[in-house]
Amino acid sequence: MSEIPEVVVLRLPLYARALELLRQEGVEVISSQGLGARLQVTPAQIRKDLSYFGRFGKQGRGYNVSGLLGELRQILGLDREWPIAVVGVGRLGGAIISYPGFGPHGFRVVAAFDTDPFQIGERAGGLVVQSMDELKSTVHEKGIELAVVAVPPSQAQAVIDALVDCGVKAILNYAPVAARVPQGVLLREVDPVVSLQSMTFHLKSMRGGPS
Amino acid sequence: MSEIPEVVVLRLPLYARALELLRQEGVEVISSQGLGARLQVTPAQIRKDLSYFGRFGKQGRGYNVSGLLGELRQILGLDREWPIAVVGVGRLGGAIISYPGFGPHGFRVVAAFDTDPFQIGERAGGLVVQSMDELKSTVHEKGIELAVVAVPPSQAQAVIDALVDCGVKAILNYAPVAARVPQGVLLREVDPVVSLQSMTFHLKSMRGGPS
Repeated sequence: MSEIPEVVVLRLPLYARALELLRQEGVEVISSQGLGARLQVTPAQIRKDLSYFGRFGKQGRGYNVSGLLGELRQILGLDREWPIAVVGVGRLGGAIISYPGFGPHGFRVVAAFDTDPFQIGERAGGLVVQSMDELKSTVHEKGIELAVVAVPPSQAQAVIDALVDCGVKAILNYAPVAARVPQGVLLREVDPVVSLQSMTFHLKSMRGGPS
Repeated sequence: MSEIPEVVVLRLPLYARALELLRQEGVEVISSQGLGARLQVTPAQIRKDLSYFGRFGKQGRGYNVSGLLGELRQILGLDREWPIAVVGVGRLGGAIISYPGFGPHGFRVVAAFDTDPFQIGERAGGLVVQSMDELKSTVHEKGIELAVVAVPPSQAQAVIDALVDCGVKAILNYAPVAARVPQGVLLREVDPVVSLQSMTFHLKSMRGGPS
């Protein structure tokens, strides 16, 4: 499975999310046209992306919604629960810990950490905030492979290094810094400024021409 | 400028962010190798991406950090301030309104809205939360073209439709739904579950083979 383009891997969760909604709406079968229209993706793109993983659906019959969703969840490794650690329990970290979207998708925040001594021992969501000194033992005890980082930019790289050091293999970083991880560790970023800037580029062009 | 691939547009903000940090660190000149190492991108990729916009840097001399940053900011439309509206002032919306990363990058949250009558009139960050009834007049008065949506999933599409109706041209959606916008309106999503799922795909593969 190593030759699958990363852009395809990034689209699979979007397909799964759309199928989940369709299932909730009681839709049992959907064509690649129908799924494409929901996602603003061409039907050809959907068929091509799915073809990396085998044959789904029958020519002219569309996809069985539950069936394809089940296959995608298995492909994405979501046929199990993934325990997550959140580091940083400020306003953003607090919102992440309480985010209701994780549970239904197989993720569960099982530990919360902060570097601020005033936060340690306090509650965040249903968790007691722990000191970074307890990171390693907690990661091992709870089998944590995924972590979310929501600390200030100046602390992000050090926190990420500590997570890597404890054996965490995948990190979602909300701090607006270009953090580095060693080979074999996955890093994704959530930075609203980057998303906004890619839109202002187009807004500027839509207005008419170079400045 | 309409033939520039979207993947390139999405990388430009990352280059700008790295250059901003370099400038803060007092670095005046950087090679494409140096910049690439910071971003885990190849130097050839950086040179190719920048070549869409003209000639930057001299062969063997590297890039002038401030100069390239200034050019990128102009290309991205960041040589002005962009007023933003945030809709939804719950925990996540509150974190977004108070996000310190917007200001230095030319974005300013100038208005906050909510559908919950108990929130209206309350303060969020330095703003008084407004009713959706005031959306249209405020968008026009303050020249808002960009909005951030942080409402529950069930409300997201209706809020997005209302924003589009008021003439908002670019929307960053934090609600975990595949929302739709008409042609000519830009939509980006921030969904941590989608980011996490693209990593579990790889974690599963790293562990060894198909299930």
